[in-house]
Amino acid sequence: MKFEKHIFICTNQRIDSERKSCGEECGLALVKEFKKALKDKGLKGRMRAQRSGCLDACDFGPSVVVYPEGIYYGGVQPGDVDEIVNEHLIGNRPVKRLIIDFSVEEKTGNES
Amino acid sequence: MKFEKHIFICTNQRIDSERKSCGEECGLALVKEFKKALKDKGLKGRMRAQRSGCLDACDFGPSVVVYPEGIYYGGVQPGDVDEIVNEHLIGNRPVKRLIIDFSVEEKTGNES
Repeated sequence: MKFEKHIFICTNQRIDSERKSCGEECGLALVKEFKKALKDKGLKGRMRAQRSGCLDACDFGPSVVVYPEGIYYGGVQPGDVDEIVNEHLIGNRPVKRLIIDFSVEEKTGNES
Repeated sequence: MKFEKHIFICTNQRIDSERKSCGEECGLALVKEFKKALKDKGLKGRMRAQRSGCLDACDFGPSVVVYPEGIYYGGVQPGDVDEIVNEHLIGNRPVKRLIIDFSVEEKTGNES
């Protein structure tokens, strides 16, 4: 596996839609925060955080998925990044309060 | 895990650079082909293919990574999509001829 942890952050922006999209909220700010945190903690090269298209979790956004675990986080704000990095990426203790519970999902997704 | 297989396809396009980037080659065409193949085979919902930023494998592009395995494919062309879908995504037999061997890596990566 090239990266121990690979973090994809939705930066999708919808045009001409009333539905919210992660990119409109703080997707790019999250990418910047994650990249900075990985660099500051000397994890660059071992882990990677990057932008992605729509992760199909729009109603829970801003959303982020961490692989190889496939754990989805929702409602992520820049202030949550340090906790995700320290607890999950370094400590392997996923941050339960931010994990998306897809069993309550009513509608998600767009193509991008 | 929300998706049995989650395929990220680099569509990064470099501006003002002499280095090639996946998006300039066929990144978006690959996204379209993968999405079509998943839909045609009734895998939509179970698997997802989507665009992403730079996967840090520029010199091997166009590149694609499949999670949760974390297998990177390089030099992927639209004509390879059916084989990846049938063999790897459905059959769990990764397509060896396209797997990137990072041990021969000389230089990769850009920030995006």
